[in-house]
Amino acid sequence: MTRIDGRSPADLRPVRIEPGALAYAEGSALIETGDTRVLCAVSVEDGVPRFLRGAGQGWLTAEYAMLPRSTNTRTPRSASAGGRAREIQRLIGRSLRAVVDLRALGERTLTLDCDVLQADGGTRTAAITGAYVALRQALEGMDARGQLSGQPLRSAVAATSVGVVDGDVMLDLCYEEDHRAEVDVNIVMTDAGDFVEVQGTAEGTPFSRDTLDTMLELGWSGIARLLAAQREALSA
Amino acid sequence: MTRIDGRSPADLRPVRIEPGALAYAEGSALIETGDTRVLCAVSVEDGVPRFLRGAGQGWLTAEYAMLPRSTNTRTPRSASAGGRAREIQRLIGRSLRAVVDLRALGERTLTLDCDVLQADGGTRTAAITGAYVALRQALEGMDARGQLSGQPLRSAVAATSVGVVDGDVMLDLCYEEDHRAEVDVNIVMTDAGDFVEVQGTAEGTPFSRDTLDTMLELGWSGIARLLAAQREALSA
Amino acid sequence: MTRIDGRSPADLRPVRIEPGALAYAEGSALIETGDTRVLCAVSVEDGVPRFLRGAGQGWLTAEYAMLPRSTNTRTPRSASAGGRAREIQRLIGRSLRAVVDLRALGERTLTLDCDVLQADGGTRTAAITGAYVALRQALEGMDARGQLSGQPLRSAVAATSVGVVDGDVMLDLCYEEDHRAEVDVNIVMTDAGDFVEVQGTAEGTPFSRDTLDTMLELGWSGIARLLAAQREALSA
Amino acid sequence: MTRIDGRSPADLRPVRIEPGALAYAEGSALIETGDTRVLCAVSVEDGVPRFLRGAGQGWLTAEYAMLPRSTNTRTPRSASAGGRAREIQRLIGRSLRAVVDLRALGERTLTLDCDVLQADGGTRTAAITGAYVALRQALEGMDARGQLSGQPLRSAVAATSVGVVDGDVMLDLCYEEDHRAEVDVNIVMTDAGDFVEVQGTAEGTPFSRDTLDTMLELGWSGIARLLAAQREALSA
Amino acid sequence: MTRIDGRSPADLRPVRIEPGALAYAEGSALIETGDTRVLCAVSVEDGVPRFLRGAGQGWLTAEYAMLPRSTNTRTPRSASAGGRAREIQRLIGRSLRAVVDLRALGERTLTLDCDVLQADGGTRTAAITGAYVALRQALEGMDARGQLSGQPLRSAVAATSVGVVDGDVMLDLCYEEDHRAEVDVNIVMTDAGDFVEVQGTAEGTPFSRDTLDTMLELGWSGIARLLAAQREALSA
Amino acid sequence: MTRIDGRSPADLRPVRIEPGALAYAEGSALIETGDTRVLCAVSVEDGVPRFLRGAGQGWLTAEYAMLPRSTNTRTPRSASAGGRAREIQRLIGRSLRAVVDLRALGERTLTLDCDVLQADGGTRTAAITGAYVALRQALEGMDARGQLSGQPLRSAVAATSVGVVDGDVMLDLCYEEDHRAEVDVNIVMTDAGDFVEVQGTAEGTPFSRDTLDTMLELGWSGIARLLAAQREALSA
Repeated sequence: MTRIDGRSPADLRPVRIEPGALAYAEGSALIETGDTRVLCAVSVEDGVPRFLRGAGQGWLTAEYAMLPRSTNTRTPRSASAGGRAREIQRLIGRSLRAVVDLRALGERTLTLDCDVLQADGGTRTAAITGAYVALRQALEGMDARGQLSGQPLRSAVAATSVGVVDGDVMLDLCYEEDHRAEVDVNIVMTDAGDFVEVQGTAEGTPFSRDTLDTMLELGWSGIARLLAAQREALSA
Repeated sequence: MTRIDGRSPADLRPVRIEPGALAYAEGSALIETGDTRVLCAVSVEDGVPRFLRGAGQGWLTAEYAMLPRSTNTRTPRSASAGGRAREIQRLIGRSLRAVVDLRALGERTLTLDCDVLQADGGTRTAAITGAYVALRQALEGMDARGQLSGQPLRSAVAATSVGVVDGDVMLDLCYEEDHRAEVDVNIVMTDAGDFVEVQGTAEGTPFSRDTLDTMLELGWSGIARLLAAQREALSA
Repeated sequence: MTRIDGRSPADLRPVRIEPGALAYAEGSALIETGDTRVLCAVSVEDGVPRFLRGAGQGWLTAEYAMLPRSTNTRTPRSASAGGRAREIQRLIGRSLRAVVDLRALGERTLTLDCDVLQADGGTRTAAITGAYVALRQALEGMDARGQLSGQPLRSAVAATSVGVVDGDVMLDLCYEEDHRAEVDVNIVMTDAGDFVEVQGTAEGTPFSRDTLDTMLELGWSGIARLLAAQREALSA
Repeated sequence: MTRIDGRSPADLRPVRIEPGALAYAEGSALIETGDTRVLCAVSVEDGVPRFLRGAGQGWLTAEYAMLPRSTNTRTPRSASAGGRAREIQRLIGRSLRAVVDLRALGERTLTLDCDVLQADGGTRTAAITGAYVALRQALEGMDARGQLSGQPLRSAVAATSVGVVDGDVMLDLCYEEDHRAEVDVNIVMTDAGDFVEVQGTAEGTPFSRDTLDTMLELGWSGIARLLAAQREALSA
Repeated sequence: MTRIDGRSPADLRPVRIEPGALAYAEGSALIETGDTRVLCAVSVEDGVPRFLRGAGQGWLTAEYAMLPRSTNTRTPRSASAGGRAREIQRLIGRSLRAVVDLRALGERTLTLDCDVLQADGGTRTAAITGAYVALRQALEGMDARGQLSGQPLRSAVAATSVGVVDGDVMLDLCYEEDHRAEVDVNIVMTDAGDFVEVQGTAEGTPFSRDTLDTMLELGWSGIARLLAAQREALSA
Repeated sequence: MTRIDGRSPADLRPVRIEPGALAYAEGSALIETGDTRVLCAVSVEDGVPRFLRGAGQGWLTAEYAMLPRSTNTRTPRSASAGGRAREIQRLIGRSLRAVVDLRALGERTLTLDCDVLQADGGTRTAAITGAYVALRQALEGMDARGQLSGQPLRSAVAATSVGVVDGDVMLDLCYEEDHRAEVDVNIVMTDAGDFVEVQGTAEGTPFSRDTLDTMLELGWSGIARLLAAQREALSA
């Protein structure tokens, strides 16, 4: 079986990660997976939200938005800031917090801005994968400025999607596939092979435990390759 | 091991479902799981959202909100209508749509209002379980009024949560357990034993594939009992 | 003359007040007058609004909202939080403040949340009548915790509506009657027989002084019975 | 007893009404009662709100706002558009609709804009009294353009306030008196001596039936003089 | 060539400035230029915005709004608070700040409220011209209260518009001319003949350097006359 | 005199324009002027705003926003959508409309999205210069699809800023210079050497006619070079 862009079911799209894509941010990365392009910026600011004041730890939060013409037809700015965007930015924030020891940051807040320049499916998982690289860069700067107490990173983290399209399980769905998928699973995993998030959704057709198992295996194979791409980008 | 409310790890809290709790709604149910109480109402209105006009099918959508004093300390109304509420109502809507054949509804919109009167954890899963009962009542009324073309329901659907608390896997977390959980999974399944949604989140500690498997098994055992409670309520 | 629900003009609808209807609120009551159902919760929080800081007194405020399907046809949530709701919550707050000595509360704020579960007319007056019972419960708890300086309650307070429907003066209008009324008066009175609020509105037909006098007498007869229902609920 | 501005308890403040104060509005009036100044404009537009379409009648609605520096200290614009303003504009709209036969207007909407240039108490009652004059001017223009079917005005309408200040009943409270009043009643009446609205509020001290009766009598004496001032302005 | 209101191209409309038009504001002026009428109020409040705290200087800011029926047909309030209003109030604030030494004000904020009662073109330039008079009055009061350290005013400031209509350059456009203008320039100048703002806009037809030069000359001739009208109003 | 980045007063920063930077937009360009980077996208959609329906012409509008971390320190998204952004997008829209014959577009709307990826001063003028290139690309596509009636472009348009910094007139201010400038002029001109917009602002110090003349000359010299860079990019 061949996919609409010529890939086989277990193929990722080509991945390119450019660390330091922005001049002013403490950390940044531009990630491209196929035609999807997400610009990730990390800002380090003093202070923490009210609910953490005096707790002697830091905070990490994320924002996610799409440029109006990142999409095939124009999406009004107001629409791109709605419930879906909030759900995604909560996912990105949780995913990165799961691999960071917030106590090592001091009373500082790291804000991950993930702005989608072009959207061909998989923007939230690309954002997580790219944000990890931007975060590494920001943490190195904090380390150099003596702002860290201990090692803040517990593991690397990356994410991809898996889906069932016309009955076939496929890795890393592009927009066209995602649109037609019966089942869609977003998977976030660490380099220890553990899960940070699993979000599986039946779009109309409930799925069996066997299908879930197949999708989880395929997801891990993709994430392992994305973790390698992160390492390569960071060592370049 | 005993839990803070005396249950064993595989126990659900007591469930009570009262169909027809509201006089004016086309369908309604009050569901109580332990101290959690959710009032579910189904409204049937002519017309569909713009993106479906002329498609010859219906739509089903959900809204979720918490009363300010459903919680242990008061939550301002503005806070209870934020990103978390939108994420939950999207989940409820998707879960119910997954078991409904929208073509059987005609050009009508069914709105599920799930209002949390009291919150002791598991409000979103209780909302799904209760909304199914309210939906059944609404569909019976539509059938009696000759508004259905064919059987709209493909299966029953119910939901529960499973989590890891202090290293132990537990079913149907109350608020106190949910607050302390390292891992939290919300599971929505049909009476055929298939998945509609799986949302697993590591709160700080990534989880292994083995832990996931254990949680999915335990979740299904709880959902099977909730499906029985729904059947009982509907046949009463 | 018989009314659409079989009552005579001077009859109240059946009243039921359940104190302590919510587990977490400092005070609560569920009030039913006919098919109207309002859930009243009192939250006690430290601090006062900015305009009272340092004045050595407390504050009492109210919020009022309707569940979307409390009404005969669904009311969108945004609509139910508009100008009408604000006007009503200002009325509820003023009515309860009129019988409370705010200096006895210390620098604390009591928030009355009145949420309408089902609406068959008279929701604002039911909210006032029920809120008084919830407030009594909250003040007893404050007293037990040693938070009161002196007696905060000057009198009991209750409310009802009177109207002119098809030329006849009637007590405690249900929705259908309220909808058709030429004149509508909401009356809030203390157990000393004094007025806290009188809000009379001609819906299309101005009314004479004689009609006003008749309505005020009938209102007091209904309020006297509601005050008795409060006493009974509180002594149960 | 003399009041802070030298009036006796039964005195109105000096009233001045200037019809046609605006060049573009279909009807307009500037009303001054003491230092209170309200600019009233009537706009006549084709069409009616959705809930009246096809009903063969018109609609009349009001908006009320205060200029930021109408008040003694500056009020931010956002504050002046809150719940209090909405409550007042609903009152103004109801009061004028009570004397207008909406069927005579055809499918047109009359919008009364009441903008407070300077506020020294009694702005809502001045707005009603001035709006009537602006409305008369607008209706004359409609009549001249052949837009009316029948006589739209059933009677004249005017409004004033009465209150209890330091135990004394007083007519037409200025800001300083209103601020200190124990009881405040806004009264809207027609030239037939009937009530359109009575809104009595105890600010801290409930009031007796006798006090209410005294206030209603005093209110009518003031309204009779305001109705005369309207007639004079319109005949000038 | 004669203009629609009979003026010659280099004529201003009749100007009338009434200082002290409001009783409560620290400074105020009502300015009329032809049928355009703007009410300007200056409020003096202690404190400065966050970005200036501790800088030992004051701040001056402006707000601009139009009454709904200032215009030929009614403009909804929401529309009159949009992007255009914000652009204008930023212009007014900058223009007045350019002639004020903010250090002489102490840590105080002066807010200029410019509310358009009637709009026949040139409302922003009328607002600047009138606001200067209101500001002078407010500064005199501050001086009398000993609130100024040194002379805060560096020069007088006034503004007008110039445009190209049907190929002719004209001064002080009324609404009808402004609407048809090919080019529109707003000019703000001091009594030293220097520029504070020049905002030239081609509405469809770019304009040459020669045309710009002609417009700037004509603008200054009008501003000189407006500066004289300010002096006259202030010395009255 | 040398500037902080080594330029002489009459130098532009290095300019780079990449047409077609986005895959889905009908026209697009990424423009870099020094460290300032703006992504311009043109969307072509059927239909026109309400005020143009049936007028047989098209419309062109612009939106402008900054990514939160385009700036030296993070700017919250809500702040970047305020009054300043609206003022800029109105300028961009007017500037491009001035060189387009809207009748040639048919009843279509062209939306220019100008999103600032990195901000080092001059973002609004870069946006105009880049938007022209994106617009050319979009119009070529429309021409190829037969959607144009006649030649829509009357001339090319580009923009730059000029300012007075520490008494010296300088071209194309970077952020640091802009921040310290006493006078700031944004100039938009066509390739015929005519003005589309001139916006000159004194930041604290009014400026003379001589200074204005010098700035306008310098601005044109810069714009001529930007027009050349546009031609080069489009012919590549």
